[in-house]
Amino acid sequence: MSFTDLSIAADAKILPIQEIAERAGIPDEALELYGKYKAKINVNALPTATAHGKVVLVTAISPTPAGEGKSTVTVGLADAFNQLNESVMVALREPSLGPVMGVKGGATGGGFAQVLPMEDINLHFTGDIHAITSANNALAAFIDNHLHQGNSLNIDPRRITWKRALDINDRALRQVTIGLGGPAGGIPRQDGFDITVASEIMAVLCLATSLEDLKERLARMVIGYTYDRLPITVRDLEVEGALTLLLKEALKPNLVQTIEGTPAIIHGGPFANIAHGCNSLMATNTARRLADIVVTEAGFGADLGAEKFMHIKSRKGGFHPDAVVIVATVRALKMHGGIEKGLLAETDSDAVRRGMVNLAKHVDTIRQFGIEPVVALNRFVTDSESEINEIIEWADAAGVAIALTNVWEQGGAGGLELAALVKQELDRPKNFSLLYEETDSVEEKLRIIVQKVYGGADIQLTDKAQKQLVELKKYGWDALPICMAKTQYSLSDQPKLLGRPEGFTVTIREIMPKLGAGFLVCLTGDIMTMPGLPKQPAALKMDVGVNGEAIGLF
Amino acid sequence: MSFTDLSIAADAKILPIQEIAERAGIPDEALELYGKYKAKINVNALPTATAHGKVVLVTAISPTPAGEGKSTVTVGLADAFNQLNESVMVALREPSLGPVMGVKGGATGGGFAQVLPMEDINLHFTGDIHAITSANNALAAFIDNHLHQGNSLNIDPRRITWKRALDINDRALRQVTIGLGGPAGGIPRQDGFDITVASEIMAVLCLATSLEDLKERLARMVIGYTYDRLPITVRDLEVEGALTLLLKEALKPNLVQTIEGTPAIIHGGPFANIAHGCNSLMATNTARRLADIVVTEAGFGADLGAEKFMHIKSRKGGFHPDAVVIVATVRALKMHGGIEKGLLAETDSDAVRRGMVNLAKHVDTIRQFGIEPVVALNRFVTDSESEINEIIEWADAAGVAIALTNVWEQGGAGGLELAALVKQELDRPKNFSLLYEETDSVEEKLRIIVQKVYGGADIQLTDKAQKQLVELKKYGWDALPICMAKTQYSLSDQPKLLGRPEGFTVTIREIMPKLGAGFLVCLTGDIMTMPGLPKQPAALKMDVGVNGEAIGLF
Repeated sequence: MSFTDLSIAADAKILPIQEIAERAGIPDEALELYGKYKAKINVNALPTATAHGKVVLVTAISPTPAGEGKSTVTVGLADAFNQLNESVMVALREPSLGPVMGVKGGATGGGFAQVLPMEDINLHFTGDIHAITSANNALAAFIDNHLHQGNSLNIDPRRITWKRALDINDRALRQVTIGLGGPAGGIPRQDGFDITVASEIMAVLCLATSLEDLKERLARMVIGYTYDRLPITVRDLEVEGALTLLLKEALKPNLVQTIEGTPAIIHGGPFANIAHGCNSLMATNTARRLADIVVTEAGFGADLGAEKFMHIKSRKGGFHPDAVVIVATVRALKMHGGIEKGLLAETDSDAVRRGMVNLAKHVDTIRQFGIEPVVALNRFVTDSESEINEIIEWADAAGVAIALTNVWEQGGAGGLELAALVKQELDRPKNFSLLYEETDSVEEKLRIIVQKVYGGADIQLTDKAQKQLVELKKYGWDALPICMAKTQYSLSDQPKLLGRPEGFTVTIREIMPKLGAGFLVCLTGDIMTMPGLPKQPAALKMDVGVNGEAIGLF
Repeated sequence: MSFTDLSIAADAKILPIQEIAERAGIPDEALELYGKYKAKINVNALPTATAHGKVVLVTAISPTPAGEGKSTVTVGLADAFNQLNESVMVALREPSLGPVMGVKGGATGGGFAQVLPMEDINLHFTGDIHAITSANNALAAFIDNHLHQGNSLNIDPRRITWKRALDINDRALRQVTIGLGGPAGGIPRQDGFDITVASEIMAVLCLATSLEDLKERLARMVIGYTYDRLPITVRDLEVEGALTLLLKEALKPNLVQTIEGTPAIIHGGPFANIAHGCNSLMATNTARRLADIVVTEAGFGADLGAEKFMHIKSRKGGFHPDAVVIVATVRALKMHGGIEKGLLAETDSDAVRRGMVNLAKHVDTIRQFGIEPVVALNRFVTDSESEINEIIEWADAAGVAIALTNVWEQGGAGGLELAALVKQELDRPKNFSLLYEETDSVEEKLRIIVQKVYGGADIQLTDKAQKQLVELKKYGWDALPICMAKTQYSLSDQPKLLGRPEGFTVTIREIMPKLGAGFLVCLTGDIMTMPGLPKQPAALKMDVGVNGEAIGLF
């Protein structure tokens, strides 16, 4: 018989969530059950404790379109620590329903390194993303109602930057015209929908440290500009209280479990391009209060995910990772070695050797932060011994710690070697430092990221971006960290430039201030904030069995 | 100090939902907790039992825009039965978030006749409506993706009848153009958004009797027509399984409690104009399995709510109400007596007497079904003794059972007299009959409703409706019950014709087949399926307190 993620999950023994809570040291009064296997954590009811846990960040080399199994390694590594009797929790992002309906492939790990109950997590879970959709679109309705009711704030309908959102892949909503049909339909204007995980509210929720901080961040969000080009914020509309009310339950982290019973927090899932791409700060810091080791991940490769994790999330959260795992696969290394997508399953040790430069760059990048990374070579059945040896020889020569992982098939047992290497790094005293300060100029911050993290030569701002920069400085919005929106496939801003490109210039096309999230999104290409569906959406295979069980969900 | 619904709710003693479940005879294994005070009921895990409970339907005279307190009386009557040690449950609709953000006023009863936890119920509750929004918009995305990917079904983009939905009041989305921006944005076409509670999926969920029935109904829904004018259904798109998967948890009824600890099921909330306007059949029949008496309500006045309850919901559910309560207020009677909105608080017994004709017509209507209605005169502090006496004298003369209720202020104790009268009617043998058969012709069904329920003379179909009728017959869709979409303010189709108009003709402007719901929506005027926000939305007063408590929510 053949295993699927869904069949493995369905056969797994799942424990009542109260038992998981007990393992994690969460008292009953802090637990709000959502069915038998999910719960929200009321962090105010946790026993007072400092956030002491050490953080293991799982990141990756520049990935193939299929991904390198970062979530799977994250879950497997946590299960390995659990097998070694360490006090451990895993913190992951919440999956978006849009891609679930569109493309086969979950976001809850895979095989025997999964979080459960996978079907709930991949469908509506505890409703956090629905709450964000509601708040996002309530705000949009308040804006258009303001226009309709006389527009006393003098908002320019052509300069409204706040978009509507749905948690769906729907290309037909990318560009729309609203307010049609005469006076009863409000004021006509151009608009568009983003997928909910690309909403600034998702980024806000993921960086908020309390309800009060959430409200303050929501109030700061810029929704557009007046006819006099002055910014209009949520505070001007006086609806930050209502938006906070809609989000108050969504701010509470969600407790679930891995297939091996390791406590897991799954909370928040901002897009990794337009936002910072990691689970909520609330989740990570709650896990740090409860466990000695917290294994977490960041979206895309280390040039995007790890860089933003350091400069945005952990900077705000007052911590830094104590170890970094870089997930690599033979497949991705071959791609960086110049092999085409259709031929990646064929043995080619030379290609692996050529592609190693990409991994080497990510290793160098992490070392610049003062952390010695551990490479996790995530095994696939198509990998040959000669290819694997090629990688191990390179690592030995370069003095890089490396472990083979096989957690999809073996669960935590397939990650024990990795856990041992990570533990060594956790225990090593280190001298962590960020690569830039928030108070550096925007150009300086951009240049540091491009040169030190991407290995490029310089930056170049379009006329549009230069004008925006002038505006930013005028409003005093320039002392914020950068959130780069760049292709994940290349270290450069050109998706086809694989391996370790050098001497390139990164073009900054647009700078979007996200004052609620507290960062400046810098666009370097066409960033898709509303995906489309494929010709054969995954939904076509989905169904419900006679006992209400999910069918065809991965 | 002054009481608000929210302050009363906040001060109420709320019991753990497990205690309520125990009172209702729901075993632990059938209970899926959502926090401490809400649960979903897995009806398959209930002890086998026939649906034996008798149904009390609470309806009303033609209402004022503020409503006559139907939900409040429904809750208070159930609490009164509970005080009398009857085995009782209450079944209500789920509130929509759109009106909650727009207009101050809840949908969970009021004062001391409320359901709890009111703030959760009025916000995201257990996510049912969000699941419907997701399924509705997933279907829309599948349709537009089908057009974009080659349109093998030959769907005419100009004849797509499926609209998108959001659970929000947002007039700017009533009429939109989607698919703009070139090929990456799909195929441009006109579209619009309804409020989620107006989605056919809401009606489908509320009439489905099992997961299988839900899937079959979803499959039958017509989404538009081909260039050859042939209907296209969800089954043609092969996504009924995926939609059912998105809705499988939403189909489970939600258990909560009244302020006096009476078990309450709140589940489903279809719009009362474009749909049938009562809670789910699943909820009512689950309550009938658990309790001897089930108190439930239907939207708007008896001409709409009660008529549809009889001809659509209870017909499908295989039961009929055993008693009907008609809620009347001095205020509404004065309005029907010709008094303007601003003067309704002033004593005017003559106006009350003149307005009584409206109540008399609704009493006659219910009698036609073979049920002797009980009038609940829902007291307001502005009512005078002389006005109340006027009504009681009329009732005595007309042989109509009437009880004063004061449940807002007194809870169940304010409904004991009403409960006693209702109990008499429940125990009386009766000869219930519907006014039309599904197999009657569409014109015949319409004429019966207009003449027997509205007291009008005849019907008239516009050219458009006549053409639609020809199509309906061609496809064999005519043997379905009628779902009238008519103003609630008048017995006629003209909102300003108050009292008891006679001799009027009702114009049927459009007939919309809803094959999933299993009824034909007949539009008699401009029916608003997406409300707008007022100049000062209720949201402006909303906030969250330091301990996460709701502020300004009613």
